[in-house]
Amino acid sequence: MLYIVGLGLGDEKDITLRGLEAVKASTKVYVEAYTSLLSFGLTSDGLSKLEKLYGKPVIVADREMVEERADQILSEASESDVAFLVVGDPFGATTHTDLVVRAKQLGIDVKVIHNASVMNAIGVCGLQLYRYGETVSIPFFTETWRPDSFYEKIQRNRELGLHTLCLLDIRVKEPSLESLCRGKKCYEPPKYMTIHTAINQLLEVEALRKGSAYSEKSKCVGIARLGNEDQLIAAGSMTDLLDVDFGAPLHCLVIVGETHPVEEEMLEFYKVK
Amino acid sequence: MLYIVGLGLGDEKDITLRGLEAVKASTKVYVEAYTSLLSFGLTSDGLSKLEKLYGKPVIVADREMVEERADQILSEASESDVAFLVVGDPFGATTHTDLVVRAKQLGIDVKVIHNASVMNAIGVCGLQLYRYGETVSIPFFTETWRPDSFYEKIQRNRELGLHTLCLLDIRVKEPSLESLCRGKKCYEPPKYMTIHTAINQLLEVEALRKGSAYSEKSKCVGIARLGNEDQLIAAGSMTDLLDVDFGAPLHCLVIVGETHPVEEEMLEFYKVK
Repeated sequence: MLYIVGLGLGDEKDITLRGLEAVKASTKVYVEAYTSLLSFGLTSDGLSKLEKLYGKPVIVADREMVEERADQILSEASESDVAFLVVGDPFGATTHTDLVVRAKQLGIDVKVIHNASVMNAIGVCGLQLYRYGETVSIPFFTETWRPDSFYEKIQRNRELGLHTLCLLDIRVKEPSLESLCRGKKCYEPPKYMTIHTAINQLLEVEALRKGSAYSEKSKCVGIARLGNEDQLIAAGSMTDLLDVDFGAPLHCLVIVGETHPVEEEMLEFYKVK
Repeated sequence: MLYIVGLGLGDEKDITLRGLEAVKASTKVYVEAYTSLLSFGLTSDGLSKLEKLYGKPVIVADREMVEERADQILSEASESDVAFLVVGDPFGATTHTDLVVRAKQLGIDVKVIHNASVMNAIGVCGLQLYRYGETVSIPFFTETWRPDSFYEKIQRNRELGLHTLCLLDIRVKEPSLESLCRGKKCYEPPKYMTIHTAINQLLEVEALRKGSAYSEKSKCVGIARLGNEDQLIAAGSMTDLLDVDFGAPLHCLVIVGETHPVEEEMLEFYKVK
């Protein structure tokens, strides 16, 4: 059996009882490190928080390892119970679908244990989930690579009065350019896009495209560390949010569409004065 | 402190460790019964599954009670810790926002403990969450009331190649017409829309509106009892799905937009032969 277990958004205590049972029953436990394990105790002192709770070792699996060792993980899962832990919900990101597809193709039983992810926990800011249009991703711009396909999507959502959830880029274990040139593996330090960077990139694209999809006056909600004890939510114009110190990652941003009175009442609590 | 705790989708074991801690620390525990508590043991023998796990009594709060006794719940929360439990995630539905707003207005600390909801767990069918457009609700049609505002939304999503999540109507504790006439409270038995009813209503609206938003050949995914042990997922045309016995509620339906190869691979596992 391959258990794919969502860990939720906060820390080790956000696993469900069902998820913990699966981990306890498993002979091998992997945790994906594609995205961010910031608050799960995966710091310099290793996996202490998760391993302490589970009472067994946890293997951190980055994308490379999952790709290279997928056969091994699947072969283990065909003989005994293996748990593959994922931050948020197992299907919040595309990255785990491939492992599930391969397991199913091999006839290995797969059991998914759900949890909260940004895609539903974002409801905490008070904007109703069924009033969101397509979600967009904002990638880090570089000197030569400034993809802006999010622009049309935001424009469409706003024309329809819908809110837009902007997921901000995370770069974990990116090979450094230098290391690629030298042919050995060396990694850039992890990089998490801030709300400030996202807003600056958004405004830069609006200035170029001039489609009036949004402006510096457009109402937004910035959320830092969603689902964590020290979560911060601030509502205001893009300009207002540039003045807010959101602190440590992860950040995400909502561009607000048309609002209903009950949504307005909730946003009022988070308004930047 | 008012804890708003998501219970997840399956049964009592889908609460998180953090959620369980909040319940154990609370002097009063309410569970909302607006939507559906089918699998949480809230049957004829009462709250056995939840109460057994929590080691304390749980008060079932229907919408009427929350509206009538909100002041009491909030006054309790201003003096001690009160847990308000919600199926799925606290902000999956609009119904709890009002309680949160009132608590915050009274200066009562509110802590939200997230969990999975249909809005993210639907990812299990293999269609990527960021490729969904606006979510629609399909209400039960009556002889005289056949609202079809979902039609334009589905049409727009399909024009954009996006998937559409259709939430199917749930009628719990609806006053019966007879009881309204007689001025005393009597309720209809709970009613949950099936995938079959939803598809028949959708096709009826398409036949009237003739906008080619979808047809009986449109690819869909039907999901019954999402997140439960006996969850059933079936992919096929609307006609195909009319032949599937989805069994007990809750049901939901996805109308598929344009698909990527990895989405196709996952749908293949659920295809109706």
